[in-house]
Amino acid sequence: MAATGTEAKDLENHHNDCFVQVSNPNIATMKEDVLYHFNLSTSTHDFPAMFGDVKFVCVGGSPSRMSAFIRYVAAELGLDHPGKEYPNICAGTDRYAMYKVGPVLSVSHGMGIPSIGIMLHELIKMLYHARCSNITVIRIGTSGGIGLEPGSVVITQQAVDECFRPEFEQIVLGKRVVRSTNLDAQLVQELMQCSSDLNEFPTVVGNTMCTLDFYEGQGRLDGALCSYTEKDKQAYLQAAHAAGVRNIEMESSLFATMCSACGLRAAVVCVTLLDRLQGDQITTPHDVLVEYQQRPQRLVGHFIKKSLGKA
Amino acid sequence: MAATGTEAKDLENHHNDCFVQVSNPNIATMKEDVLYHFNLSTSTHDFPAMFGDVKFVCVGGSPSRMSAFIRYVAAELGLDHPGKEYPNICAGTDRYAMYKVGPVLSVSHGMGIPSIGIMLHELIKMLYHARCSNITVIRIGTSGGIGLEPGSVVITQQAVDECFRPEFEQIVLGKRVVRSTNLDAQLVQELMQCSSDLNEFPTVVGNTMCTLDFYEGQGRLDGALCSYTEKDKQAYLQAAHAAGVRNIEMESSLFATMCSACGLRAAVVCVTLLDRLQGDQITTPHDVLVEYQQRPQRLVGHFIKKSLGKA
Repeated sequence: MAATGTEAKDLENHHNDCFVQVSNPNIATMKEDVLYHFNLSTSTHDFPAMFGDVKFVCVGGSPSRMSAFIRYVAAELGLDHPGKEYPNICAGTDRYAMYKVGPVLSVSHGMGIPSIGIMLHELIKMLYHARCSNITVIRIGTSGGIGLEPGSVVITQQAVDECFRPEFEQIVLGKRVVRSTNLDAQLVQELMQCSSDLNEFPTVVGNTMCTLDFYEGQGRLDGALCSYTEKDKQAYLQAAHAAGVRNIEMESSLFATMCSACGLRAAVVCVTLLDRLQGDQITTPHDVLVEYQQRPQRLVGHFIKKSLGKA
Repeated sequence: MAATGTEAKDLENHHNDCFVQVSNPNIATMKEDVLYHFNLSTSTHDFPAMFGDVKFVCVGGSPSRMSAFIRYVAAELGLDHPGKEYPNICAGTDRYAMYKVGPVLSVSHGMGIPSIGIMLHELIKMLYHARCSNITVIRIGTSGGIGLEPGSVVITQQAVDECFRPEFEQIVLGKRVVRSTNLDAQLVQELMQCSSDLNEFPTVVGNTMCTLDFYEGQGRLDGALCSYTEKDKQAYLQAAHAAGVRNIEMESSLFATMCSACGLRAAVVCVTLLDRLQGDQITTPHDVLVEYQQRPQRLVGHFIKKSLGKA
């Protein structure tokens, strides 16, 4: 019997669905999967029921900022109401915090590649077990800028390493493995359009340098260790700028690598807290920093609203 | 005039004092030093008054565990009393948590080298500004074991990289810099003696492998990405064991490098949560894991008590 119009449409949608994949054949054969750092397990939690409707995952360093983000998004999407609470889904561990409203998940990742790496392994497995499809993952964070007015937002074109290469190097079983750090070019344009829609703060598209260290690794002169001069530092940051680097943070390269490897549409949107050509210390008043930190949230909030046809 | 006996003794003690040093000439010339990730600054806080008496600094990944540790140590040292509170000194940020009782400071460092690195840069500068002397720093943590009964405590002889070398490689201004990961051999013996005093759990001295990743980086088969077999994994872990590695974690090499560079007496004491030769997932019941996690705390608590002549 021929399919009805609706059935055909459903089938077509289904075929177009892009389900979250893991790049590990072992996972499908495991009886139980304990996501240790989330304090969640496939044997104690119903992942499809809890997360099956997720379409947007926003990740950022600080648990309290990711808690604030879920409240902000809930209000923007009209899903908030007085007295509504957003419990931490990862209660029982203080490694990460996770919040959900409607199709939006907000997860903290701590600082640095190892910390976001553990989170992404467990997040991607969680979305896979939940049979999620058509997911967009966006990192909203803070960063140091190069040659930009503090408070500027950078949408990452390419995540690059400390030598400005679009690569991420990992050690697997004692051997070096190099992977690319591709991000979704169309998503960059969509987010840039959202910034134009809002017209609230300066936004640029640029390369983002990802480092393993905040002090020496980013050429700062104010760490507990420093063996180079102001002149050396300026030469390095100018070379980074010439290579298209507009900001520096500590998670984007692994984030890009892992999302790309698992077929997830991904973007990085960071605000700059200072211009590293002018200094190293973050001395901007607390309330100004708080407003800066809300900028990626506002941009991504608008993107989600627009994607859901609510903007 | 000749010094009196007491003055001579004071002078001698003073000369023997080992003050915390930074390896950066810029710090002494800074008018203000903002420890951004601690939410503390030399211009708003009196570091000598707040921290000048600190002699022991214990660091560990989880904020709640470091909060529990300060209460434990306070009771052990007889510095606790009903209703006494231990406020988080880094209130106002959720990057790190810091607690103090008497001469003991307890600080969380999150997960991975970049996260503990930021913390150590700011901690060492803080202790330097506070003019602290004769400090011992101990990391108390969790780890995966190799060929040990779960719950065993490992006192680190040498922190080694993923190729079993006692080195830490860093990128500074785009160039590779390799530093040694020496720890204090005498402190290892003192801690081992404390474990014998207690006689509560198995403790060994061994090498600790420090990785940038928890899944592929430690040869796990259960991450979102995995491109090797059980056989490859076993060969790698057996090679690690043959090189003297008894546990795997994610902070020890940078911890050893930075403490060594700044003249701090340092040790790493971790409990093993599982034997990686037997599996990858941590499925041990929660209450058993909680007891395991207290073992490094009990060992180091006893060490501090003994050092202060209270054991």
